[in-house]
Amino acid sequence: MRTSHPLPLAARADGLVGSVIDSSTSLLHKQTHDIVRFAMGSPAAEAIPTDILSGVAESALGHAAPDAFDYGATEGDPPLREALLETLEGTTDQTTADRLFITAGGMQGLDLVCKLFVDPGDLVVVESPTYTNGSATALSYGATLLEVPVDDDGMVVDALPDLVRRQGRTPKAIYTVPTFQNPSGATLSLDRRHRLLELTREWGSVLIDDDPYGMLRFEGEPLPSLRQLGEGDPLVFSVRTFSKIIAPGLRVGWVDTAPELHQLLINAKQAMDTCTNLPAQRLLTGFLAGGHLESHLATQRRQYRVRKEAMHAALRENFGDIARWTDPEGGFFLWVTLENGVNTADLFEVALAEGVAFIPGSAFSPSGRFPDALRLCFASTKPDRIHQGIARLRRAVDLLAKLGR
Amino acid sequence: MRTSHPLPLAARADGLVGSVIDSSTSLLHKQTHDIVRFAMGSPAAEAIPTDILSGVAESALGHAAPDAFDYGATEGDPPLREALLETLEGTTDQTTADRLFITAGGMQGLDLVCKLFVDPGDLVVVESPTYTNGSATALSYGATLLEVPVDDDGMVVDALPDLVRRQGRTPKAIYTVPTFQNPSGATLSLDRRHRLLELTREWGSVLIDDDPYGMLRFEGEPLPSLRQLGEGDPLVFSVRTFSKIIAPGLRVGWVDTAPELHQLLINAKQAMDTCTNLPAQRLLTGFLAGGHLESHLATQRRQYRVRKEAMHAALRENFGDIARWTDPEGGFFLWVTLENGVNTADLFEVALAEGVAFIPGSAFSPSGRFPDALRLCFASTKPDRIHQGIARLRRAVDLLAKLGR
Repeated sequence: MRTSHPLPLAARADGLVGSVIDSSTSLLHKQTHDIVRFAMGSPAAEAIPTDILSGVAESALGHAAPDAFDYGATEGDPPLREALLETLEGTTDQTTADRLFITAGGMQGLDLVCKLFVDPGDLVVVESPTYTNGSATALSYGATLLEVPVDDDGMVVDALPDLVRRQGRTPKAIYTVPTFQNPSGATLSLDRRHRLLELTREWGSVLIDDDPYGMLRFEGEPLPSLRQLGEGDPLVFSVRTFSKIIAPGLRVGWVDTAPELHQLLINAKQAMDTCTNLPAQRLLTGFLAGGHLESHLATQRRQYRVRKEAMHAALRENFGDIARWTDPEGGFFLWVTLENGVNTADLFEVALAEGVAFIPGSAFSPSGRFPDALRLCFASTKPDRIHQGIARLRRAVDLLAKLGR
Repeated sequence: MRTSHPLPLAARADGLVGSVIDSSTSLLHKQTHDIVRFAMGSPAAEAIPTDILSGVAESALGHAAPDAFDYGATEGDPPLREALLETLEGTTDQTTADRLFITAGGMQGLDLVCKLFVDPGDLVVVESPTYTNGSATALSYGATLLEVPVDDDGMVVDALPDLVRRQGRTPKAIYTVPTFQNPSGATLSLDRRHRLLELTREWGSVLIDDDPYGMLRFEGEPLPSLRQLGEGDPLVFSVRTFSKIIAPGLRVGWVDTAPELHQLLINAKQAMDTCTNLPAQRLLTGFLAGGHLESHLATQRRQYRVRKEAMHAALRENFGDIARWTDPEGGFFLWVTLENGVNTADLFEVALAEGVAFIPGSAFSPSGRFPDALRLCFASTKPDRIHQGIARLRRAVDLLAKLGR
């Protein structure tokens, strides 16, 4: 027996920090009382097209498809690749077969690009606040993170040169969620997109554009993707997923990247999971080729707009005196900053007892910034419940303020 | 544009070597003439229980299961965990809920353990020949591989101390496929299992027991698993998969490991793919809970035994004068060594033209050993076709020998 010896963990194990976001939502699953759930990061159950997906299962997984349970191609199942290319035509993510690579969800896209490029100790720029499940992937390869502020126009790109200069070295990679950012809801402006591309070229950095929500725009006009603006740049990676627009449990996404990197991606993915699960790829092919996406997205966009407006109205009514919040044009989330000194990590438990859940701001900063902020998902809750939830949240804030915390 | 600059790849990208096994089988898919396919590493199409899997799809993915497409728990879907624990009861892989962790196939089990333990430059012992897709995962984290010979009783464990001594440092990990090894078909004897555990303890090494074929024993008695023999040892990892016993495309497997490592596994997997795809987990739950596994395995075992015997008979008939081969008690593969100087990498193309496919021996050694050997999969071909294929193989060998290569 050697249980008394310390485990001979790799140095990178220090970077395996886990997800505060996921552990907060797990905690929620254990609650049995009535809770308005603004903590969610996945589509609500009724927003997942279970009927259509199980409807295509018979043709996709049945007798007519004897290879549906066999190994698939590492770069993705050809029929899905074809259906996806067609789906993306005319969008800001339009691409070509030689650039498309199917992954096990967006997270594996991040895992692949970090595996290819991030050496231990490399500087990786992340937004502040950021999607910490994404920055955790960089940490898992030993990256040193540099946090750059976000405002209503996304990452404050002009702050970047100074922050980088103080590090004494240029970033190996820049990780951004440029559209309806998680958690802030902000979208990177066109000017800043151009400037960000300039800087990454100057520095020779990899630019990781993680955009799970772009197809869920319910207001305003789409902006060109970083990939479009940086046409031909081999170091711009678009990381995409079906998780938020169709269903997260399928674990299927894609990256759009330079053809010269595909053999390396194949090699890396073969050492990760061989190929992406084939039944889910076949279900998605049926969904896309059946022409279901457009009407599904139209329904979601309509609902999400109404729900964001309901949340804004409820916030004005209940929080006008003590908070400010963002105004996203799409996606799932908005970001509230309290101005009365209440710590949102402390608020979490009190709010849960009052029957409302959110994710505390500090969960979106590797260094624990934003003790006064919180992320609210407006997308998964009906308008009347949104009003109820925001009223409960205000009661929790007042309760906590009264306790002097 | 910066296309003229070299890509700023991470040091570990040198270790992203890709799979010769996979590229050989990909090449096969492009052939249109009649080929007897001994190259396969996946179950034959008719060995995958497509009917049963698509039969459970309605209840597993339909209306009654609205959460089948949502995110699942990182450590695995509770109903699958439960069904699997029951399935393993009484087997040499029997385990408990606190040790079980569901993965995206066996390959992700290897990815997880390497991510947790392998630092760049660490020494990792592999069998020679070995399953190079497995050793590639260690390489992808920067490992230095040390090859140890295999004979009819599996890894020659007694050769290990000397080989390790010459390296001037002890191995961080030892990677073995102890049962019906890929590619040799050999099974590690009980004595060697004990000795291997002694050595790994002496050296403080992690022991990775990768056993995709153990349930496919068609002769002889099962041996205790390394996990059973090393009871309580926190550094013995059982890596398992449904790929060979049910269907590879599902990409579901599991690891059995010390409870104290589970939080780290959760953190690491969250940074890889969040969770394993839920629809495949639900299909498997239906398959296992429906009691289909036992009769499915019984059919496979019966077939595979008949096929191995057919291949042995065909080898005796056609290769008795110029080769020797192994005698596996289960699994998919046997290993043939030619004694007439023919190079099997050269043989590959000639054999393909003659209408038979295999994987050359050098594909199973990181350093390209075994130019005189080849792996044959007996499991996926019917007896009369096996005879035909082996006769073609002999013609190809004679043809090549005549050409003086």
